[in-house]
Amino acid sequence: MGSAKQYRPVAGGGVTLAAGFTAGAVYAGIKTPGPDKLDLAILASDRPAAVAGIFTTNAFCAAPVVVSRAIVAAGRARAIIVNAGNANACTGEQGLLDAREMASLAGGKLDVDQTEVLVASTGVIGVPLPMDLIRDGAASIEMKAAGAAEFSRAIITTDTHPKSAGAELELGGKTVRIGGSAKGAGMIHPNMATLLAFVTTDAAVDPGFLQTALSRAGGDSFNMITVDGDTSTNDTLVVLANGAAGNPVVTGGQDGEKFTAALTYVCGELAKAIVADGEGATKLIRVDVRGAASDADARAAARSVVRSPLVKSAVYGSDPNWGRVLCAIGYSGAQVDPMAVDLFVGSVQLVKAGAPVPGSREEAEPVMKEQEVNFVADLHVGESGATAWGCDLTEAYVVENSAYTT
Amino acid sequence: MGSAKQYRPVAGGGVTLAAGFTAGAVYAGIKTPGPDKLDLAILASDRPAAVAGIFTTNAFCAAPVVVSRAIVAAGRARAIIVNAGNANACTGEQGLLDAREMASLAGGKLDVDQTEVLVASTGVIGVPLPMDLIRDGAASIEMKAAGAAEFSRAIITTDTHPKSAGAELELGGKTVRIGGSAKGAGMIHPNMATLLAFVTTDAAVDPGFLQTALSRAGGDSFNMITVDGDTSTNDTLVVLANGAAGNPVVTGGQDGEKFTAALTYVCGELAKAIVADGEGATKLIRVDVRGAASDADARAAARSVVRSPLVKSAVYGSDPNWGRVLCAIGYSGAQVDPMAVDLFVGSVQLVKAGAPVPGSREEAEPVMKEQEVNFVADLHVGESGATAWGCDLTEAYVVENSAYTT
Repeated sequence: MGSAKQYRPVAGGGVTLAAGFTAGAVYAGIKTPGPDKLDLAILASDRPAAVAGIFTTNAFCAAPVVVSRAIVAAGRARAIIVNAGNANACTGEQGLLDAREMASLAGGKLDVDQTEVLVASTGVIGVPLPMDLIRDGAASIEMKAAGAAEFSRAIITTDTHPKSAGAELELGGKTVRIGGSAKGAGMIHPNMATLLAFVTTDAAVDPGFLQTALSRAGGDSFNMITVDGDTSTNDTLVVLANGAAGNPVVTGGQDGEKFTAALTYVCGELAKAIVADGEGATKLIRVDVRGAASDADARAAARSVVRSPLVKSAVYGSDPNWGRVLCAIGYSGAQVDPMAVDLFVGSVQLVKAGAPVPGSREEAEPVMKEQEVNFVADLHVGESGATAWGCDLTEAYVVENSAYTT
Repeated sequence: MGSAKQYRPVAGGGVTLAAGFTAGAVYAGIKTPGPDKLDLAILASDRPAAVAGIFTTNAFCAAPVVVSRAIVAAGRARAIIVNAGNANACTGEQGLLDAREMASLAGGKLDVDQTEVLVASTGVIGVPLPMDLIRDGAASIEMKAAGAAEFSRAIITTDTHPKSAGAELELGGKTVRIGGSAKGAGMIHPNMATLLAFVTTDAAVDPGFLQTALSRAGGDSFNMITVDGDTSTNDTLVVLANGAAGNPVVTGGQDGEKFTAALTYVCGELAKAIVADGEGATKLIRVDVRGAASDADARAAARSVVRSPLVKSAVYGSDPNWGRVLCAIGYSGAQVDPMAVDLFVGSVQLVKAGAPVPGSREEAEPVMKEQEVNFVADLHVGESGATAWGCDLTEAYVVENSAYTT
C-alpha cells in the first residue's frame, strides 16, 4: 500500500471533506419508508473536476453505469446524482432514458451540463425507476458544504450503517484532502460488486494519472474483498479531483506515489468497512497468501479462500477445519506444490510442508473464536503475496436474502 | 443426451447390477459411530476390466486421487477400495503411503495386483487415515454378488440417503447393464466436486472409447451441477467395463452412441439425486440457457446462475427477484446483449428483450413456490444451449457447515 506513508487519516472523512464540494440528500420515497431514511443524493464540485472510475464487469451493466462510463471516458465531471432502493438495471431502453433524465435533473439544478453529471443507482434489479418521485426529490435537495453525512446515509441499502473515510497530505507545499463514502453489504466480490463508492479530492490531478492511481487503489482494496461472490450490475467507484487545493497538477512521480498511497488508504478503509458489514456477518476473515508464483496467483488464491462458502461457514462456527482453506487455494488456479505448502491461523501453524501439524487443531480453537480470523498460506513456489478480506456466512445472510424484494 | 434413447432404466441399479461384479462393506470406525453405519467398502470385478475416470482439478488433490489417476492412465483395473469419514487429503507423504496400503489391502484380499486397485476417500481433510481401523475393516469385508446396497451406504458422508441408478440396453445382440452409486451433498460444483461416483458395466468397451464416453456423460451430468461452488480435493468418477455380457467390443459408431446415451442417463440420475440432496437443500433449481453464442457460453451462464448465493437464497424464499438470475449470467463471461435477453420462470415470461414484463413478478410468485424452480434464459445471440441443476441455500446449510469437524 505504498512505501512512503506520508498521509494522515482524517476521522469522519466523507465526500465534502475536500474543498469545493457540496452534497445534499432527501427521502424521495424510493426505498420502503422508515424512520430517518434518505434515498436520493447529489454531490457537486464548484468547479470542473478531473474524473476517474472503475465500473462493474457484469455484461448486464445497469443503465446508470452506461451513462457514467461515457463521462469517465471524457475525463471531466461536475456532479453525481445517486439513488438507493432501485438499481435501474435490466430495465431496457426506458432505463437508459431514466438514467439520462436523472443526470438532467441534477444538471438543471446545479446549472451544469448533463454530460458532466455522473449517475449511480443501487437496489432491486428489474423494476422501472419511479421517475415522479425522483423529479420531486431532486428538486427539494438542499446542497450543503457539510453534506457528507447525509450523502453517506442516502446511498446505503442493506448496510447497517454509513461508511466514510478520509485522509490529508501535502503536495507541492499545499495541504490536500481526500474523502469518500461507500455502500456495500451483499454481492461484494472481486472485480467490483454491488458497491458504490464516491471519493473526492481537492488535489489537482491529471485525469490520465487519476485513472492510473484509482486502478491501483481499487486493485488493492475493493477488488480484494468479497461477501458472497456475486458481481453486481451496478458497481461504481469514482473519484473527482477538482484542484481547489491549488497544488501543481499531479501527473506521476513522487507526488503521484504519495497521492496514490493516500487514495489507497481511503479506499482500503471503505473496503474493510464494507466487508465487516456484510449481510449477516459476525466475523472478519483476512487471508494472506505468500510465496506465490505471481501476483495474479497470490490474488486468485487469497480471494478464492474468502469466497468459499465452506470456509465462511467454518469461520462462523469457529471450526478449525483448515482443509477447506487449502481446498479453496487448490481450485483457485494458482500454482501450488502440495508437499511444500505451510498454513497458519493467527500464530498457530496448522500445516507444515503439506502435512498436518499434530495437535494444531486443538491449539487453533481459541484463535478461530476471535473477531478477526487471519489465515496465512505460504505456497513456497515464488515470491509474490496478496491479502484479501471477507466475512463469515451465517443463517442471517440466508434469511436476509431469501426475502429481499417481497 | 443422445438422439436414440435405446436403453431402459433399471430401478435400484447400483454397482452390482452388471454381471461379474461383487461388493461388500463394513463399519471400520472411521466415521463417528451411529446406528447402521458403514464406512469402508470394496468393489471387485471377477475379470480384468477396462477403466476410465475423471478426477478433481483441485491442485491439492488427495492421495487416493494420485493413486487412482495412474491406474486409469494404464486403462485396466480389477477393484476399488473406498472409505468415508476421512478424505486422506493434505496429509503429506504419509497420505500417499496410506492410499497405496489401502490398494494393497484390497489387492491381497482379492488376490489381484495392487496396481489394479483404485482408491477413493471422502470426509474431513488434513487428518491422517486411521490405518489400524482400515486394516481390520478390510479384512472383515464380505464380498457379495448383491453387495450394491451396502456399497452405496458405505460411501456417503453428509448425504441423507444413498444414491444409485441403473440402465440396460442391447449391444451386438447381447443385453448389457450399467449401474452405479454416488455420494455428494456439500461442495458439489462443476469440474467435479466432493463427489464420488462409481459406475460398472458388463459391456465390453475399448478403454480409449470408454474414456471418451465418460467424458461426454460427465460433461452433461456431474459437471452441470453445483451445491456450493467449492471444488473438492477428492472428486472421483470412475467406470469399470468388464465385458461379462459378451458383446463385441464397443469402439465407437452406433453402438458407441447407444452406450454413451445409457451411461449419460445413469450419470445424470446420480447427479440429479446429489443436487436434490445438497446440504440443507429444500428445492431443486434447473436453469436452461438457450440462444448462447457457444456451448461454452451456455454452460458457463447456466452454471453461474445455479452457483449464485443470491439466486439460491431467493429460490429458498420463493422470491421472484429475477434480476439476480440475469446478474449471474452477466458475470459468467458469456456473451450477452442486454437489450435482447428473454427470461422465464416456468411458463411465466419475466423479461422480454431486456425489459421487465409488467405484472410478471406477481404472476411468478406461485411458480417460485414449487419444489423445482426452472429458469429459462434465451440470450438471442446464437444457437447453443445447456442445462444446469442446483439447489437452494438455506439456514440449514450454514448450520451444518459451521460445525463439521468439531
